Amino acid sequence: MAVKKGDEYIASLKDLHLEANIMGEKVKDLPEHPLVAPSVRAVAATFDCAHDPEGRKLLRTQSSLSGEEINRFTHLHQSTEDLINKVLMQRYCGNATACCFQRCVGMDAANAVFSVTYECDQEHGTDYHQRFREYWTRVQSEDLVVDGAMTDPKGDRGKRPAELKDPDLYLRVVERRKDGVVVRGAKLHQTGMLNSHELIVMPTMAMRKGEEDWAICFALPTNTKGISYIYGRQSADTRKMEDPQFDVGNLRFGGQEVMTVFEDVFVPNERIFLDGEVDQSGKLVERFAAYHRQSYGGCKVGVGDVLIGATALIARMNGVENATHVRDKLVEMIHLNETLFSAGIACSALGHETPAGNWEIDMLLANVCKLNVTRFPYEIARLATDIAGGLLGTMPSAKELDDPVTGAHIRKYLAAAEGYDVVDRMRVLRFIENIVVGAGAVAYLIESVHGAGPPAAQRIMIGRQGDIEGKVKLAKRLIGIA
Amino acid sequence: MAVKKGDEYIASLKDLHLEANIMGEKVKDLPEHPLVAPSVRAVAATFDCAHDPEGRKLLRTQSSLSGEEINRFTHLHQSTEDLINKVLMQRYCGNATACCFQRCVGMDAANAVFSVTYECDQEHGTDYHQRFREYWTRVQSEDLVVDGAMTDPKGDRGKRPAELKDPDLYLRVVERRKDGVVVRGAKLHQTGMLNSHELIVMPTMAMRKGEEDWAICFALPTNTKGISYIYGRQSADTRKMEDPQFDVGNLRFGGQEVMTVFEDVFVPNERIFLDGEVDQSGKLVERFAAYHRQSYGGCKVGVGDVLIGATALIARMNGVENATHVRDKLVEMIHLNETLFSAGIACSALGHETPAGNWEIDMLLANVCKLNVTRFPYEIARLATDIAGGLLGTMPSAKELDDPVTGAHIRKYLAAAEGYDVVDRMRVLRFIENIVVGAGAVAYLIESVHGAGPPAAQRIMIGRQGDIEGKVKLAKRLIGIA
Amino acid sequence: MAVKKGDEYIASLKDLHLEANIMGEKVKDLPEHPLVAPSVRAVAATFDCAHDPEGRKLLRTQSSLSGEEINRFTHLHQSTEDLINKVLMQRYCGNATACCFQRCVGMDAANAVFSVTYECDQEHGTDYHQRFREYWTRVQSEDLVVDGAMTDPKGDRGKRPAELKDPDLYLRVVERRKDGVVVRGAKLHQTGMLNSHELIVMPTMAMRKGEEDWAICFALPTNTKGISYIYGRQSADTRKMEDPQFDVGNLRFGGQEVMTVFEDVFVPNERIFLDGEVDQSGKLVERFAAYHRQSYGGCKVGVGDVLIGATALIARMNGVENATHVRDKLVEMIHLNETLFSAGIACSALGHETPAGNWEIDMLLANVCKLNVTRFPYEIARLATDIAGGLLGTMPSAKELDDPVTGAHIRKYLAAAEGYDVVDRMRVLRFIENIVVGAGAVAYLIESVHGAGPPAAQRIMIGRQGDIEGKVKLAKRLIGIA
Amino acid sequence: MAVKKGDEYIASLKDLHLEANIMGEKVKDLPEHPLVAPSVRAVAATFDCAHDPEGRKLLRTQSSLSGEEINRFTHLHQSTEDLINKVLMQRYCGNATACCFQRCVGMDAANAVFSVTYECDQEHGTDYHQRFREYWTRVQSEDLVVDGAMTDPKGDRGKRPAELKDPDLYLRVVERRKDGVVVRGAKLHQTGMLNSHELIVMPTMAMRKGEEDWAICFALPTNTKGISYIYGRQSADTRKMEDPQFDVGNLRFGGQEVMTVFEDVFVPNERIFLDGEVDQSGKLVERFAAYHRQSYGGCKVGVGDVLIGATALIARMNGVENATHVRDKLVEMIHLNETLFSAGIACSALGHETPAGNWEIDMLLANVCKLNVTRFPYEIARLATDIAGGLLGTMPSAKELDDPVTGAHIRKYLAAAEGYDVVDRMRVLRFIENIVVGAGAVAYLIESVHGAGPPAAQRIMIGRQGDIEGKVKLAKRLIGIA
Repeated sequence: MAVKKGDEYIASLKDLHLEANIMGEKVKDLPEHPLVAPSVRAVAATFDCAHDPEGRKLLRTQSSLSGEEINRFTHLHQSTEDLINKVLMQRYCGNATACCFQRCVGMDAANAVFSVTYECDQEHGTDYHQRFREYWTRVQSEDLVVDGAMTDPKGDRGKRPAELKDPDLYLRVVERRKDGVVVRGAKLHQTGMLNSHELIVMPTMAMRKGEEDWAICFALPTNTKGISYIYGRQSADTRKMEDPQFDVGNLRFGGQEVMTVFEDVFVPNERIFLDGEVDQSGKLVERFAAYHRQSYGGCKVGVGDVLIGATALIARMNGVENATHVRDKLVEMIHLNETLFSAGIACSALGHETPAGNWEIDMLLANVCKLNVTRFPYEIARLATDIAGGLLGTMPSAKELDDPVTGAHIRKYLAAAEGYDVVDRMRVLRFIENIVVGAGAVAYLIESVHGAGPPAAQRIMIGRQGDIEGKVKLAKRLIGIA
Repeated sequence: MAVKKGDEYIASLKDLHLEANIMGEKVKDLPEHPLVAPSVRAVAATFDCAHDPEGRKLLRTQSSLSGEEINRFTHLHQSTEDLINKVLMQRYCGNATACCFQRCVGMDAANAVFSVTYECDQEHGTDYHQRFREYWTRVQSEDLVVDGAMTDPKGDRGKRPAELKDPDLYLRVVERRKDGVVVRGAKLHQTGMLNSHELIVMPTMAMRKGEEDWAICFALPTNTKGISYIYGRQSADTRKMEDPQFDVGNLRFGGQEVMTVFEDVFVPNERIFLDGEVDQSGKLVERFAAYHRQSYGGCKVGVGDVLIGATALIARMNGVENATHVRDKLVEMIHLNETLFSAGIACSALGHETPAGNWEIDMLLANVCKLNVTRFPYEIARLATDIAGGLLGTMPSAKELDDPVTGAHIRKYLAAAEGYDVVDRMRVLRFIENIVVGAGAVAYLIESVHGAGPPAAQRIMIGRQGDIEGKVKLAKRLIGIA
Repeated sequence: MAVKKGDEYIASLKDLHLEANIMGEKVKDLPEHPLVAPSVRAVAATFDCAHDPEGRKLLRTQSSLSGEEINRFTHLHQSTEDLINKVLMQRYCGNATACCFQRCVGMDAANAVFSVTYECDQEHGTDYHQRFREYWTRVQSEDLVVDGAMTDPKGDRGKRPAELKDPDLYLRVVERRKDGVVVRGAKLHQTGMLNSHELIVMPTMAMRKGEEDWAICFALPTNTKGISYIYGRQSADTRKMEDPQFDVGNLRFGGQEVMTVFEDVFVPNERIFLDGEVDQSGKLVERFAAYHRQSYGGCKVGVGDVLIGATALIARMNGVENATHVRDKLVEMIHLNETLFSAGIACSALGHETPAGNWEIDMLLANVCKLNVTRFPYEIARLATDIAGGLLGTMPSAKELDDPVTGAHIRKYLAAAEGYDVVDRMRVLRFIENIVVGAGAVAYLIESVHGAGPPAAQRIMIGRQGDIEGKVKLAKRLIGIA
Repeated sequence: MAVKKGDEYIASLKDLHLEANIMGEKVKDLPEHPLVAPSVRAVAATFDCAHDPEGRKLLRTQSSLSGEEINRFTHLHQSTEDLINKVLMQRYCGNATACCFQRCVGMDAANAVFSVTYECDQEHGTDYHQRFREYWTRVQSEDLVVDGAMTDPKGDRGKRPAELKDPDLYLRVVERRKDGVVVRGAKLHQTGMLNSHELIVMPTMAMRKGEEDWAICFALPTNTKGISYIYGRQSADTRKMEDPQFDVGNLRFGGQEVMTVFEDVFVPNERIFLDGEVDQSGKLVERFAAYHRQSYGGCKVGVGDVLIGATALIARMNGVENATHVRDKLVEMIHLNETLFSAGIACSALGHETPAGNWEIDMLLANVCKLNVTRFPYEIARLATDIAGGLLGTMPSAKELDDPVTGAHIRKYLAAAEGYDVVDRMRVLRFIENIVVGAGAVAYLIESVHGAGPPAAQRIMIGRQGDIEGKVKLAKRLIGIA
């Protein structure tokens, strides 16, 4: 049953009967809720992409576990070509949705867990890798959406987990049983969690001796008893709940952020992939982060493409398409967007095989990729704002269009350049607004800064991976000193 | 009755009985409407500032027209000290509101109209200047809020007004009577229009021979028959309408943008300050724009101060205040903010007297000021986002706090560093969100790009004012060529 | 005799008996001249790299023409792996020399001429491609250095070649004979020309109908009668002529720029690869430029590595290695350098086969690569200057070290941190100076801006290749407008 | 004899009979030495500026000590107008010389010493202030050039002076006598030292209890026994020694950097202005640095003006003046240059009176000024390089012009756009080269980073002066938390 369609996915999601609190209220039929539906559609779009003529080339591949055809979002990468295709797929899906389509994080978690469990077994004599292979084979064959859960709340960041008044601020094992463990804690910023069938929990940082209880990695169905969810707000989110007009900007798609709480949840042994092997935890964090930093070189670039397109379109509608400075700003937007993409591709092209047999990106360049992502979208958004014009912040509601008086005023005075419809122009402006200051800005700007770790995390990795010592040697050789 | 208090201002505003359409509905009691009230409070704050111990030093001055004590927002600047104090006052009000307090535009219009009418009279034998003096004397003595209305809709920007299918896309005189003129058209992006007693209409660009009907400048009460208003939307604006909790971010204050339509409105002669003297129109645009570009070196800096403060505060609450990179980013934010301020001060300090006797900023540096404003707030917002953390895009609604289950989860897991309250931390995050992607971003980011003209307009002025020819001469002299 | 060593190359170069004017004097024994020798050594280093254990893996490959092992600098790329290896090789050589090693341009010209001649033959029935294959087979087997000559002097850039008073300002055919053509003109900025055995002349831009005489591409030995050379100056170039001490900074290596004049030079038919097919000229320019823009993603990154290494080293010598801001600046330098590299790799990884069978980079990303190169080295140089300290601009001459008094003063007062030698510290400072403001800055800064075309040229290409129309379609689909 | 002319200054300088080592050789007739003469002329130009019609308005003022007319370079500032005029004067002199004219540092030192000695006397009962008034009255009346000497060699920056193996690495008192002290040590980066009549030594940083010997401030004539000088090299410095042709770029002017060594030099009591009062040392450093950081908002802007002019000129000569991107880059250069200027003016306009009665700049904005100076000149230089073209790095020597063959080639092929002379074009290119990578780059780039302290020093001050606590309070008030 591999390679589901979007509607099959939605049906399977509804079967989970997930519940969550949204803006203070318990919601049961989540996929139908107006704040949730756009995010469900965005995930569903990744399934449909695997069925459209162009997308199927990118989104389908052969499983290394089962040999069957699978959706690439569940793939364990087998080559640099696979790594490149991953980035191309993400750009493609970003093009299709102009928002966060939420499905990368499980793929990135799986590839990290796959290689780390292998190495852990080698070093510690554990059997996590085989467990994970079995688990993931099912994910592939059922084409499941899996969320990866890493970020702990932390509280005071100056303290280690055991030093905190409340040790639960890092998710931890509170009880060990013969058949499994019981965990307590929370994971923040869970993108697309309520659109996922499964979740994989990972530690949030390198744990040290004495912090074994926090060095836990496992998978569970999202509808497991004891896990509860609170929906995150986004700027301008309630426009999704307004009468169905276009002020929402992105008509069909949107993101989803969820706070996930584990209240003494039981995890059976076969779902545990790390438990107390503190020396493996840092590696797991770094690898997952690096895969996910690569991802941003695809998905955000895909959103950037659409933003550039919308900006070129509004320039035409404003009658300024041929102004040199407008042309030049579009070129700059493309340049920045392609620079982001370049590092996504480069870290893929220079990837390497892990001992476990899947392929890993170049760690240095994946971090370089993400560090650029923390910067350039702001510049791209600024240029889009510049070209779009002040209406981005002052345009009346689409609801006015139904008013005989104000509707007429708007149609008369917001007139576009000849050949363009005034309401189309308003739609384009709302679409741009969505990405630069609206609900879409959560994914395009805030997530670009913090997703897969904030800039400081990338800088630390670049410092470590940048081989400063090797560069000093090059300089010494040329300068002629020992 | 000069130097009103905030509540006096609000009372006087209510007396105008202004009406507008907001999100498709006619609203009569505007100042009470939840989307409008924060903007009224922001204007009222500028009145109250003139009564607090520190603010009164900045906000009160002596009228050059009447000799009476007036609010500086109605002042005709009499020295470089006045110009500097204007910027300091704007920073002060930005500090008090963290949003656009809307009252600068009338002050900037008045100073431009004052000098241009004087020169027009000299050159054309008109009597506009005396008319304007009388008009403005009343504004000062009644401490009125005046909006300046410049931006025409334009439609296809590649065409001159008369070439457009609809010549009303630039506001114009459609009838000339003995006692006045009748105008038709619209003005977009009217910041604070519905919080103003009066409006001054100015042409949107330099008009040419044959475009006399579009070269019109006049003042009218905002509640003049034939003028109608449509309220502009802002990102996340409806949070102002939610149950009074803190998700709105800025609890008390906010901005206001209005589309203003003139349907064959009569303007009596004594309110007309330019009518057909096309050679004066470009000068008027340039001067108003330059005064308004100076303004941004004060007001946006004031908002920036508060954003920096909130960012420093959230760093403490996250327990990362002492991380070197956090400290360094705060320093960078301050540096950028003070660079904006520097050009605001510099264009004031190097100002000069006009033939009419009021003082004008240095035109080059005022444009330099604004061009920096089109850039640095994006960088400051990015750094604020970086330090604040991912919760900026994922935090649950404040409404959850009332839920016994999710409220408890949030209080447990969003815990701040020791000594800080979890709900306070959430409030600070919402405040930052407001400015970087919420309703406040309209003023802090979009308006920073487009207010007082987009970057391209500043670049044209810098090219003109930058004395390239003089610089070429300096180079030639040193290089020794003729 | 393929895959020469450095000394074999130098011997073969001397056999050419090239002459040039250097600073107003005719020089006959060029490779011995102190201004030339460092540049000869830099080219020779690329030969030696093909013989060192690590370098041989990158620098040797199999010819697609002869099947023999050749130096990659003469290779016609056969895969994306080849394109990637080209960039890695260039970084490697940059690491070895910290200057422009001059050998890329012929490789880039050859790959462009190879595919364009093939297509020209298909379209015009010419036989250029076979001529070029024969020519290039010899280049490979003899491991020759070939310069590519593109930039015409142009004079007034506002005019087409035929409109100029002096039509020779674009190199052109002045006579057509049965056995060949006679050309006149000049090529500027010829990097490494006097260290080359051969030169390939290409048109400088897309020629149009009526400009057939300027649409000429051919190859000649550098010692052909009628070609004369004038040596270009570099900042601080004469330090290479000073008593052999270390003030020169880069002790062994340096660049070379030459103005090349063709005074009615005969080109035999078998050396002509384009003659009057104006429709092919633009393509040739674009392809050569794109290959060469890719190159900068390797060679400048290689120099950047050494500059970063020298900067880390001077930080240690100054005792500030562990200062957070120093560490952070080193990370930023690495980040920028690897961003340059990323686009070099990405345009290679996404390369494609040409109809002629060799491989071409992705044209968009190659231009993105170079546009970043026009920016980031300035920032890297600024950061290096920041860390190195003011001595970069104030340090006394190394000649002082021999003076008993001042030498002692310098040794006492320029003392490095413990464990580091004062003279070593001075050497490192001179090395950095070389790259940021000295002779090396010609390659690292000026050439980074102008080599392979200035920023404006890359922007034009990005505008053309960026598929704005496709992006508009993506936006329209999501916005729901036709 | 106040307000000397340039030739009077040169005569008085020669009377000092200063000696120095230059490139390993003892030089006695310093002002005639080709490496020194341009720097003498640059200082002399500041004297002549006080005699030209425009300059005299800026450069002459009334002494607050004697009431006589003096050169502003010796002035103790008496108002914000004085502070602004200082910046205008520096821009004017930068316009006149396009290099470092070296005379600011003594003015900045004097203003700092003036106020610190006053406060020291108040706190410690010393009589330094009166000593300094007497000393400086003579400086003013004789219109002397005074160098300020601050930067100690430091060695390992991780250590305090007393912890170093060689305590002389910070200049210190080695003997105390009844009539004065004996000092030993060195001062690096002494701009214009050998063109000065006097020098004022100040401590290099805030000293602590136990470091009294290093807390020393005094003045001496430059030709005092025991002080010796070693000349610093600049990139491309020896072009000043070449046959007098224009390859030097800046034909008449240049900078000067000197290493100054004090070998047990006696300082009489009346020349001592601080001796052991460690609590005053940090204040002295901060004030001097702040005045000097203000200076950069004038002098570097002045050089920037000429660079912009030369760039506009070369654009004309290349026939690209009207290309939109060229125009746009010139606008950007002006914008950046005026942003530097703005902070110079702003810190002056917001200056305040010190207890001693002279005027001090706003400390925060002076640091903001300098931090921008550490950045924008690199961007301006990059844009100049972009517009100037590749010839900046490849142009043959001016010496070729005398060669009948190559001279003719150059004249033919480097032809400028119509109406411009080829040799003039070459001169302009050399002038730009001087500033962006030549001898002038020492002042325009390296000194812009390090003069008056490196970026990290400004960041520390901005962090201290930025009133983060006050900003936190603003935020708390608006957010409604205690």
